[in-house]
Amino acid sequence: MTQQNIGIGKCALQLVLANSDEIEGLKSEMNESTFQYCLGKTGSMDLQKVVSAIETAAKRNHMIQEGVYREMHALYHAILEAVQGVTRGQVQLGDVMRTVGLRFAVVRGKPYENEQEGEWIAVALYGTIGAPIRGLEHETAGLGINHI
Amino acid sequence: MTQQNIGIGKCALQLVLANSDEIEGLKSEMNESTFQYCLGKTGSMDLQKVVSAIETAAKRNHMIQEGVYREMHALYHAILEAVQGVTRGQVQLGDVMRTVGLRFAVVRGKPYENEQEGEWIAVALYGTIGAPIRGLEHETAGLGINHI
Amino acid sequence: MTQQNIGIGKCALQLVLANSDEIEGLKSEMNESTFQYCLGKTGSMDLQKVVSAIETAAKRNHMIQEGVYREMHALYHAILEAVQGVTRGQVQLGDVMRTVGLRFAVVRGKPYENEQEGEWIAVALYGTIGAPIRGLEHETAGLGINHI
Amino acid sequence: MTQQNIGIGKCALQLVLANSDEIEGLKSEMNESTFQYCLGKTGSMDLQKVVSAIETAAKRNHMIQEGVYREMHALYHAILEAVQGVTRGQVQLGDVMRTVGLRFAVVRGKPYENEQEGEWIAVALYGTIGAPIRGLEHETAGLGINHI
Amino acid sequence: MTQQNIGIGKCALQLVLANSDEIEGLKSEMNESTFQYCLGKTGSMDLQKVVSAIETAAKRNHMIQEGVYREMHALYHAILEAVQGVTRGQVQLGDVMRTVGLRFAVVRGKPYENEQEGEWIAVALYGTIGAPIRGLEHETAGLGINHI
Amino acid sequence: MTQQNIGIGKCALQLVLANSDEIEGLKSEMNESTFQYCLGKTGSMDLQKVVSAIETAAKRNHMIQEGVYREMHALYHAILEAVQGVTRGQVQLGDVMRTVGLRFAVVRGKPYENEQEGEWIAVALYGTIGAPIRGLEHETAGLGINHI
Repeated sequence: MTQQNIGIGKCALQLVLANSDEIEGLKSEMNESTFQYCLGKTGSMDLQKVVSAIETAAKRNHMIQEGVYREMHALYHAILEAVQGVTRGQVQLGDVMRTVGLRFAVVRGKPYENEQEGEWIAVALYGTIGAPIRGLEHETAGLGINHI
Repeated sequence: MTQQNIGIGKCALQLVLANSDEIEGLKSEMNESTFQYCLGKTGSMDLQKVVSAIETAAKRNHMIQEGVYREMHALYHAILEAVQGVTRGQVQLGDVMRTVGLRFAVVRGKPYENEQEGEWIAVALYGTIGAPIRGLEHETAGLGINHI
Repeated sequence: MTQQNIGIGKCALQLVLANSDEIEGLKSEMNESTFQYCLGKTGSMDLQKVVSAIETAAKRNHMIQEGVYREMHALYHAILEAVQGVTRGQVQLGDVMRTVGLRFAVVRGKPYENEQEGEWIAVALYGTIGAPIRGLEHETAGLGINHI
Repeated sequence: MTQQNIGIGKCALQLVLANSDEIEGLKSEMNESTFQYCLGKTGSMDLQKVVSAIETAAKRNHMIQEGVYREMHALYHAILEAVQGVTRGQVQLGDVMRTVGLRFAVVRGKPYENEQEGEWIAVALYGTIGAPIRGLEHETAGLGINHI
Repeated sequence: MTQQNIGIGKCALQLVLANSDEIEGLKSEMNESTFQYCLGKTGSMDLQKVVSAIETAAKRNHMIQEGVYREMHALYHAILEAVQGVTRGQVQLGDVMRTVGLRFAVVRGKPYENEQEGEWIAVALYGTIGAPIRGLEHETAGLGINHI
Repeated sequence: MTQQNIGIGKCALQLVLANSDEIEGLKSEMNESTFQYCLGKTGSMDLQKVVSAIETAAKRNHMIQEGVYREMHALYHAILEAVQGVTRGQVQLGDVMRTVGLRFAVVRGKPYENEQEGEWIAVALYGTIGAPIRGLEHETAGLGINHI
């Protein structure tokens, strides 16, 4: 029941933190691992668009089966948990006059040795949050993990 | 007003994510930068102990001036924001029957080019959260940033 | 000060859970009791419409006196409390990319033997919550109770 | 992907709402269905005890596999969601000077026609919440649902 | 339905903000008004003690009828709302390593011209919140209002 | 490290509570103190407009330096904390079918004797919250304080 050398959440966080030099190395590592992943960017004052962008990317990259609610449900709650790290307190953006620019990573795989633990999904977010004026912003991050 | 090559939050996240091979390299990089930092570990079902461990480490490592409320206030809110990423929804551990094992990093410095932006503080957390039974846990992370 | 054989909240929950066979029996029971009630349906991604639908139904069915703020205030807080059971965490629908289809019941009466306890109001909700795609949803429920 | 005649959440709610006359009939219905269930009571000012009582009952009744984190994780989040309906706002009891007396039901099964949706778990709570003085209390309820 | 010259909430706030010179003048004004009031102090890292101190003072000063749940319920929710202004986000003190020193005022009366609006209750809090070290604190305030 | 005769938060609260007779006296006192202040009114069902109105007034009155994120960040969090006192629970207005009419005061200065504590900012709000129908509303208040 111990975790693998590197967890599914750490993978997701490393993907969103990587700069352009590091990203190819990480992608190679991921491709050799048993973990699936997808990466993307989203920015908005509208939280719905952020949630939607991650869901859409996860579906298009076949991270989850589109018609199966079970998989959507697992992903959805992982996204919301990651968003709570980004928003810290109020799960709101434009309503409280702020905007985000985020990179996101979704990673799916079996992070536990015990085969019965099955698949899990991690959503990591990293970027900036701040006033809707360029530069008036600071970094923000979030991580959500769920069984799938 | 643009950010430096690497943000204060990213530094803090990299420090808590680093494995034993990577940590020395990161420490060297940090020592060459203008950022100050400290690292530590804390684990508890008692949220007060988690907050307290980070505050104590920051004071002992002279990240903040102990008698100056302004600095304590900045650190405190950065800690609470990081804890919200870890707890995702309810800022509670034992009360809702869960425990954490966390690495923490506190980074202080001037992340903006504009000298008027002054110093900021970042608190990053990474580790596990779960039932108070070994192995019944998954990864968790949080990042809080504040002006100081 | 003990409660009646059946509480005002239980009545409200039974009304929203009843299928078409059971509903007539329940209505007869309610009509013989001293409790007033009204029933309705509402579905939306817009939380404001959900709150508004219940308020409007309660006014039209004379469950509350329309111009009296005291009664509106009691109903409003009972609705918000019921909505918290439905949304579990974030009192949000469309903003976090989800929608509801709900039955609601409002019950008003004297649930305590002690005459001084006066009238109370219960709002029960039951239905589905999920992605804005048919079938990608699960059940949800909530109950709010207030003195009036 | 449509739901069965009666949902897993509705079953759980009916079990906690049933009086002594109705409970045997419901148990028979449940035993004929493909759903597993367990029932219990818990009362405390200490939220940890409430969470723990439901977890323990679910394990003892083999509703979940004890050593498998995946199952514990699914149950845990369903419990927390049900508790949010009960506490409506602050997931706290004694800290905000209130106590609960609750019946709980845990139901596990396949609520969707589509075989791929697999098993889900529902936790329903019904009882009273109020001041730690007998009679100074009103009804409360909550429902949490998760894929397992 | 318009409010009186001075609202019940403003009265409560003025009472907690008054210095020793102003307090006697305010008490005279209150005694001439139709509003009842009581004043007190409480300080703790334990939120339960804060809630309890206000409830006890309100009962001892006959602001509410002790055995009547309706009145306790109205007061309790007004207290919790005022505490939310004080804690701003997490309704927690010691758990997140902070303490309060507060003055409180409870005011009861008929703030609306329309006789049907009946009695309402206001709870105001003002004082300091901060680290459990003297001086490391800033001001805080809260106001809760409910129909009774 | 003791506070001045009168705190920055108390000043802000007195300014929003003052009636037309009292306001000139308070303004004179403020002008003699070392504190800067600005006053305004805002009313909306749209929380973004409330946040924006206070930010705009603070910028126009040179309470904060417009291009300096550090100052915007301090003000923003003070506003959000004050709004939490006003909304008590859900930082939402129109979404949960309610509206506010508020007076606001922003006060900036050095509230601590210790010179190292530097400048702080207080945001106070006072007015009404309620249904979007005239008269169906009660008083509400909030106070946020931050180092700047």
